[in-house]
Amino acid sequence: MKSKALAHSNIALIKYWGKKDPKLFLPWNSSVSMTLDRLYTVTEVEFSPEFKEDTIIVNGEKLEGEKKEKVVRHLNLIRHIGKTDLKARVVSENNFPFGAGLASSASAFAALTLAATSALGLELSKKELSIISRQGSGSSCRSIYGGFVEWKAGNISEESYAEQIAPKEHWDVRDVIAIVQKEEKKVSSRAGMAQTVETCPFFMKRVEEVGKYLPKLIKAILDKDFKTLGEITEFDCLSMHATMLTTKPMLLYWSPETVRIIKEVVSWREEGIEAYFTVDAGPNVHVITLPEYVKEVEKRLSEIQGVKEVISCGIGDDTKVI
Amino acid sequence: MKSKALAHSNIALIKYWGKKDPKLFLPWNSSVSMTLDRLYTVTEVEFSPEFKEDTIIVNGEKLEGEKKEKVVRHLNLIRHIGKTDLKARVVSENNFPFGAGLASSASAFAALTLAATSALGLELSKKELSIISRQGSGSSCRSIYGGFVEWKAGNISEESYAEQIAPKEHWDVRDVIAIVQKEEKKVSSRAGMAQTVETCPFFMKRVEEVGKYLPKLIKAILDKDFKTLGEITEFDCLSMHATMLTTKPMLLYWSPETVRIIKEVVSWREEGIEAYFTVDAGPNVHVITLPEYVKEVEKRLSEIQGVKEVISCGIGDDTKVI
Repeated sequence: MKSKALAHSNIALIKYWGKKDPKLFLPWNSSVSMTLDRLYTVTEVEFSPEFKEDTIIVNGEKLEGEKKEKVVRHLNLIRHIGKTDLKARVVSENNFPFGAGLASSASAFAALTLAATSALGLELSKKELSIISRQGSGSSCRSIYGGFVEWKAGNISEESYAEQIAPKEHWDVRDVIAIVQKEEKKVSSRAGMAQTVETCPFFMKRVEEVGKYLPKLIKAILDKDFKTLGEITEFDCLSMHATMLTTKPMLLYWSPETVRIIKEVVSWREEGIEAYFTVDAGPNVHVITLPEYVKEVEKRLSEIQGVKEVISCGIGDDTKVI
Repeated sequence: MKSKALAHSNIALIKYWGKKDPKLFLPWNSSVSMTLDRLYTVTEVEFSPEFKEDTIIVNGEKLEGEKKEKVVRHLNLIRHIGKTDLKARVVSENNFPFGAGLASSASAFAALTLAATSALGLELSKKELSIISRQGSGSSCRSIYGGFVEWKAGNISEESYAEQIAPKEHWDVRDVIAIVQKEEKKVSSRAGMAQTVETCPFFMKRVEEVGKYLPKLIKAILDKDFKTLGEITEFDCLSMHATMLTTKPMLLYWSPETVRIIKEVVSWREEGIEAYFTVDAGPNVHVITLPEYVKEVEKRLSEIQGVKEVISCGIGDDTKVI
């Protein structure tokens, strides 16, 4: 009753920001992401009658309080499906910083979902895994798949799942990440998006707009139309941050460096470098580009004042048992 | 046929961004500002049969091209009202940098309007002056008045004018400006707002929202309720910048320093310093505060990395002939 799984993080090209149903993790809008090879979580789960309580160890540290509760709630869901009440020991290792907008909870919950269900001997389809994973952390459902992935919003739990748009072999798109801050953000995504839905006057308009450009992004991925992919990605990122800024109280996830990098990326395009920015709920900037520009983008990003680290990613695989 | 006028700049607490009628300078939403004592333009206008063409000298430099055209068009409007076709010589001096979001065109066109109409011997009410000035540069109509001023959007030219909410003696509110960039912005307000109206999906929602909180801001001014004034001012600024960010192509008027200062101002409030930020179409940050905090705000702003100059303003007077 022990299993280990590896799941990759993902970068959303169309963001998930805002729940229609906070209990079931049903999002207001569908979203699209690329799974990232270099950022991943490895999680081992063991169930045993010998355990008196759940123990969660992340990067060598035992979780307590709200962070532990979040994982225990997810284990409860999986125990319910697996018809068991055995306690678990979860040991998880992330190869990248937590909570700085690198979607650590995406890879963490995808790996946890697969490791735990597999430890209980459950044989689930990827669709089923994505539905379960979604209830631990929304965007984690996209990490169940490699390549380019859509999370269909749906109106009930069974309709809100991830689906692969194209596998990683389809198109070699890169994400060069400029890390400007490694600390956890002050306002978690979960709290932030709840505030946005409640107080931002532009939020429903954003949802409506996503419905218009999401099919165009999927077509751009299938057609390998990089310019369209980049333009939709940037617009969607700005649209999300526009709703964050107009949330009460304001959510300003950007740092000074975020603005500096965004302006740089835009100016590089004038020189012919095909690169587009996107920023999650944090200050780090993801530069979406093509293989031929990666070396130059890495070099330029690392020379920008305030950039602490540059992580270059290709497209990753499905979450898998290892 | 010669007259000299002095007009102050103003800082909008509810911004003007977007024209309903670009020819008549009718805005989509009403706006509210404070006139600023320390930022002003002095303009002398002389009409004479001896002049073969209009000459416009601003800060010692003769204007040509589009910049000259803008002034000549305004002179034409005033000549039409004054029933003359005499050419003019305009000499204007600004005591602050142009085009960096300090509303230089507001004081410039208010001073030009009063100096030119007065040189022609026209006796106009402030309301009439504001209607004329508006057609040279929208926000200049608010600079006709000192104190706290509302520009009523209106639906026809005669209904789109400024009105004083309260004179400067009513309430001693300060604007401590952190200048981070003195160069002119790349995209003028005129071009930027036209793009926003055309392409931003949130724009009409912003207009609708302004209609809700503008009466609350006016009440806050009349009641001297600084917290409400500050909160509405910040929200309106963020709402405008949210529409700018979601304009195609993106309008990112902020610089890295803008973000740094905004975050600082928010953190100062936690220490009990009553200060709120607002940012026009440029990177400079206006910190709206009360007299008792001015010294501390000036000190802190001047210590922030990237701040080139700090200009401390009180509330200014009406535009007047000098």
